[in-house]
Amino acid sequence: MRYSKYKKSLDYSYTLGAYPTINMLQSIPEYATSVFVSDRIEEAKLGELRRACDESKTRLEIGANKLVERLRDKDSVDVVGIFKKFDRRVLDEKKHLVLVSPSDFGNLGSIMRSAAAFYFDDIVIISPAVDVFNPKLVRSSMGEIFKLRFTYFESFEDYRRAYKDRKIYTFMLKGKTLLSEVEKDADEKYSLVFGNESSGLDDSYLQYESIKINHRPSVDSLNLSNAVAIALHSFENSPAVSLRGTK
Amino acid sequence: MRYSKYKKSLDYSYTLGAYPTINMLQSIPEYATSVFVSDRIEEAKLGELRRACDESKTRLEIGANKLVERLRDKDSVDVVGIFKKFDRRVLDEKKHLVLVSPSDFGNLGSIMRSAAAFYFDDIVIISPAVDVFNPKLVRSSMGEIFKLRFTYFESFEDYRRAYKDRKIYTFMLKGKTLLSEVEKDADEKYSLVFGNESSGLDDSYLQYESIKINHRPSVDSLNLSNAVAIALHSFENSPAVSLRGTK
Repeated sequence: MRYSKYKKSLDYSYTLGAYPTINMLQSIPEYATSVFVSDRIEEAKLGELRRACDESKTRLEIGANKLVERLRDKDSVDVVGIFKKFDRRVLDEKKHLVLVSPSDFGNLGSIMRSAAAFYFDDIVIISPAVDVFNPKLVRSSMGEIFKLRFTYFESFEDYRRAYKDRKIYTFMLKGKTLLSEVEKDADEKYSLVFGNESSGLDDSYLQYESIKINHRPSVDSLNLSNAVAIALHSFENSPAVSLRGTK
Repeated sequence: MRYSKYKKSLDYSYTLGAYPTINMLQSIPEYATSVFVSDRIEEAKLGELRRACDESKTRLEIGANKLVERLRDKDSVDVVGIFKKFDRRVLDEKKHLVLVSPSDFGNLGSIMRSAAAFYFDDIVIISPAVDVFNPKLVRSSMGEIFKLRFTYFESFEDYRRAYKDRKIYTFMLKGKTLLSEVEKDADEKYSLVFGNESSGLDDSYLQYESIKINHRPSVDSLNLSNAVAIALHSFENSPAVSLRGTK
């Protein structure tokens, strides 16, 4: 099979670099197809890749210089791991991170990395939005994307209809409660909702429990991925978000 | 004067885009030299720029298409603002953010944006490190860099010698105290110290009050700019960092 440079319409995508490739082999062995490495790979890195390929029963091809050169976007890349795109829907009983129309690969990748770090394994994406399987995003997530479930919806209303009875927290510059003063029930099912990089969430989201990350008024806004990281850390680690206690 | 594409050796640099340019004109009017815009700029944006140039007594040149095209790195840019490089040393009485060898323009820019947002106006950079005046960094900071003071040091020891009697908090994967459990004196002078994107801080930094941002062990690390954002927010907004109270 001849693999081509990534397009959204393909039914496969690929990891660039050793670390995301090993993460992929360990997290989704059932979707891993092949790993290609170029001649100049270091011995130690090759050893690690070989072990991960053996354990996941994935084909490893050494000396695939031409293929690696065709697919990579930076000269420093010497490993490419092909995987089949997969579909793992978000689970109702889990906490959700909801992103409305994220538009930047790098930002969304580093959001996925933080989401995995803080046990937010269920990511809802409201269209239009970037393609989560884009190799740039996969790399910027450091391969943490392979540990997550994600579902796209056409609108926030569609998401609400599919996943009912959840507490909805919306992050907005106009939010009514400061993040450092939020009180949540220990056992509630909840979703944290963020708008896109340039426009945020519109006023219709004020109907939910709206939250503001307190910052200097003269600074227009935080970088989206930084704002999400602050919120996920706060919700995962009390006492930043104080618990009302079990009911 | 003929302005050339950015190089570190130049004694000037420039902003790309209207928002960072206006931030520059308002924050460092004494260093602003000229603003160049291309023909196709929108009327509303031009109006805002014109006001900011008037207030800061900065020359505005409209129709400078060739210059804008030469200096910009993306087709969407239609404003370039030239400024003289400046030197504003960090103040001893303020809280400091110390970055040991940051190597990525985008990351350092968004760190500066968060630093301004959380009132960390004094940034110490330990060399080797990227050049803070690079236009990519200026843009990724959204122009917040112009509100900050920063000083480069050759080593962490040099910094310690120059700024004594401060509490030093080092952020490390091996850190001894969880960020959510740090207790600090309300009136202490302090510095938050972070390592670089790929290697973090070495074990010699364990001699200070070392802090760990609690996250899932299977995730290797957080993105540097996300880790810094979480820490700055925690230190600026109790109760994430609980205060021991004034002595």
